[in-house]
Amino acid sequence: MTMTAPIASVIDDLRALLGDRVVTNDAVRGQHGHDESSFPDRLPDAVVFPVETAEVAQVVRICARHGVPIVPFGAGTSVEGHVLPTRGGVTVDLSRMDRVLEVHADDLDVRVQPGIRRVALNEHLARYGLFFSVDPGADASLGGMASTGASGTTTVRYGTMRDNVLALEVVLANGEVVRTGTRARKSSAGYDLTHLFIGAEGTLGIITELTLKVRGIPEQIAAAVCVFPSMAAGVEAAISIVQQGIPVARCEFIDALTMTMINRHAGLDGPEAPTLFFEFHGSPAAVADQAEAVRAIVDAYGAGEFQWATTTEARNRLWRARHQLYFAAIRSRPGSRAIATDVCVPVSRLAECVDATAADLEAFGFPVAIAGHVGDGNFHTVLLIDPDNPDDRARGREFTNRLTLRALEMGGTCTGEHGIGIGKREALEREAGPAAIALMRAIKQAFDPQGLLNPDKVLINGPLPEA
Amino acid sequence: MTMTAPIASVIDDLRALLGDRVVTNDAVRGQHGHDESSFPDRLPDAVVFPVETAEVAQVVRICARHGVPIVPFGAGTSVEGHVLPTRGGVTVDLSRMDRVLEVHADDLDVRVQPGIRRVALNEHLARYGLFFSVDPGADASLGGMASTGASGTTTVRYGTMRDNVLALEVVLANGEVVRTGTRARKSSAGYDLTHLFIGAEGTLGIITELTLKVRGIPEQIAAAVCVFPSMAAGVEAAISIVQQGIPVARCEFIDALTMTMINRHAGLDGPEAPTLFFEFHGSPAAVADQAEAVRAIVDAYGAGEFQWATTTEARNRLWRARHQLYFAAIRSRPGSRAIATDVCVPVSRLAECVDATAADLEAFGFPVAIAGHVGDGNFHTVLLIDPDNPDDRARGREFTNRLTLRALEMGGTCTGEHGIGIGKREALEREAGPAAIALMRAIKQAFDPQGLLNPDKVLINGPLPEA
Repeated sequence: MTMTAPIASVIDDLRALLGDRVVTNDAVRGQHGHDESSFPDRLPDAVVFPVETAEVAQVVRICARHGVPIVPFGAGTSVEGHVLPTRGGVTVDLSRMDRVLEVHADDLDVRVQPGIRRVALNEHLARYGLFFSVDPGADASLGGMASTGASGTTTVRYGTMRDNVLALEVVLANGEVVRTGTRARKSSAGYDLTHLFIGAEGTLGIITELTLKVRGIPEQIAAAVCVFPSMAAGVEAAISIVQQGIPVARCEFIDALTMTMINRHAGLDGPEAPTLFFEFHGSPAAVADQAEAVRAIVDAYGAGEFQWATTTEARNRLWRARHQLYFAAIRSRPGSRAIATDVCVPVSRLAECVDATAADLEAFGFPVAIAGHVGDGNFHTVLLIDPDNPDDRARGREFTNRLTLRALEMGGTCTGEHGIGIGKREALEREAGPAAIALMRAIKQAFDPQGLLNPDKVLINGPLPEA
Repeated sequence: MTMTAPIASVIDDLRALLGDRVVTNDAVRGQHGHDESSFPDRLPDAVVFPVETAEVAQVVRICARHGVPIVPFGAGTSVEGHVLPTRGGVTVDLSRMDRVLEVHADDLDVRVQPGIRRVALNEHLARYGLFFSVDPGADASLGGMASTGASGTTTVRYGTMRDNVLALEVVLANGEVVRTGTRARKSSAGYDLTHLFIGAEGTLGIITELTLKVRGIPEQIAAAVCVFPSMAAGVEAAISIVQQGIPVARCEFIDALTMTMINRHAGLDGPEAPTLFFEFHGSPAAVADQAEAVRAIVDAYGAGEFQWATTTEARNRLWRARHQLYFAAIRSRPGSRAIATDVCVPVSRLAECVDATAADLEAFGFPVAIAGHVGDGNFHTVLLIDPDNPDDRARGREFTNRLTLRALEMGGTCTGEHGIGIGKREALEREAGPAAIALMRAIKQAFDPQGLLNPDKVLINGPLPEA
């Protein structure tokens, strides 16, 4: 890919199409030059704000004609550099394509534009007694969540984005618009293009519409927290709950130090001990049934009393605290940036993996802060680094390499939900192996022969240009 | 693709590799010349019986070197001509690769070879208190079920093959072996190759190993049937059950004529009326809860009493009868072959779709026999045709075209679970549209540039050679 592209004439063409929805000022370029990761900013040459699919298609055609890179941008909440315009070009900000297009309450599906965010979608759906289940914590855009293959706190019960997208509309690298999937609940009709675009991080096309599975808000929702005498006890209790097939809606582990950070950040005063956060969904009888089964298990691991949150407000407070974990960690050391790790292993290996990782954190001099979607075998650590200190970065890299190898040896993956971006490309090569990487390259080549769609994400394409 | 391939030297090379596990006699070629569809037989030149992945890879290398087509074969239970060697060549029968390689009861996953069949797998898993949920009715091979993107009676609760395969090992068109996925419950690591091979019908590679999600056998399982005063009442009751989110494990509709055929075929004497078959899984309390909720709904639609089957034997008898539906239909008219339709629509449109389809069956002079996985919006009709009567075939084709269009207009798909094979390729073109078909062709070209893997399936590749 050559980067001697005539960006000036691209911007002229874009202005003719979108007028003042083409922005080249430093402030807006700066806002689109980073995500929540610790990678150095890379600015796009221009940011465009389309309001409909046809405009996205036109933007892509213009960029393709001039060989200029295109980076789709949702809410910028990714944590592996997914939206960094590593080779400049045009960032397509989809935040103005944020409408709910159709709600089919009878079929439990909904058609939305990619820029709508999780919280706004759920506010809209609540009017119909419905909710969208995938909850990555951040108030991400739905297009971004699909592109990342996101999941989160409710995945143990309701699955990932891959499990909850029925159909997509996607603008391809040549500006064509393709529709994949239907509103049918299942289909065996040809190659599964829908799943190919989910998790492709905008490197195969730009998602311009999604048809999502939604669910009826359960008759009863009850959240509870309980503390454990040790990290191992909490993790092992969670594993046991999942192995017994109890259909908990959420089952989140947070260690003592992370609880301290959250308390400090959110002004809370919860006990600073290893904690499991639960949520139970269903009929009152089902919720009571599940809670009782969970209670029996956690008792065996020495847990304290359940602290219940049954009102919507109390539950929201609880989960807001949980969701602030990432920022709580960053704020605990002013000036720092974060590397969030994200391995996922078979649950039978989880306790061992968490244990070895805690020991490694200590050995590397990082705070031992671990939290995770333990029901799925997925957990995070947040490494705080000084972005200007190369030693810090090197240490972070070595720690994450060791963690990745540990997860792969256990039959796991380098990323349960954060995706590859630019940060995990070596880890992906190690995990997938040369034959699978060759297939991924062949797919990329077939879908985007010029290599213009979100360059340098997922697959390594030569060295990254200097920032 | 040219078919002047030197098949004799391929067979020589295969014999050097596999000895007498290369078979060219008419009986065995005949067995591999058809599936359960009504398409005329097409014989392979040879059938090979590998026992390990390395042999499959070698077979593919030999065929690729000589430009000879390769057709993977599981149990031959497909219904759209998936395994027909339309251009001759070598059929790779995977039935001797039928071992369970690893059972991870703690992680609820299992690693198997592709030739193992559903019933044998579940017999094996029962020792561990586990089961594999996908049940297409036929005793299909797991490799075939994955390749077809199969689903079935339990999908309303537990999902399709796409939802229950964690990882694959696949032999590619060049003989390389690729592994996709891991044993982690979720991953965002790169393009989703696993889902791309599921439903690809052997056209992108040959599945040689699968890692499957399994589940604990529920504490209680109870099956029940009840009859309705009309087809519409039965279908609408099922829709209502699904819309209310009651987690039934099975919810199958069978109309009066189909019940008659099943009775006659299986020597049963159940009531010959529109019927719903249910199965409830869970704790005794959960099962009672679900059954009561279902009872309230079916009452509103004028259903008769529940006939309960709570013993394993009684349940097996019940579901065996349900699963014999396809053969019961064929046997009801000796000498006939069957075209099984398979549309799937959003449940809110299901009653309307079933109604219009019943009227159309009558207008076309086909028996009005309808059965389906109504909880998913998926239903079947079985068109009995005289395979030697071109008029019958034309009538069948026109009926199914009309049905496909009806399903697509309703936001549905031409195939919920049977796949494309050679029978639904035009329907796929209509459903997916030119842009998606172009992407599928690009994927096929990237994965199998010589076009040797299961030719003429999924995508149209010129006219079919004469039988």
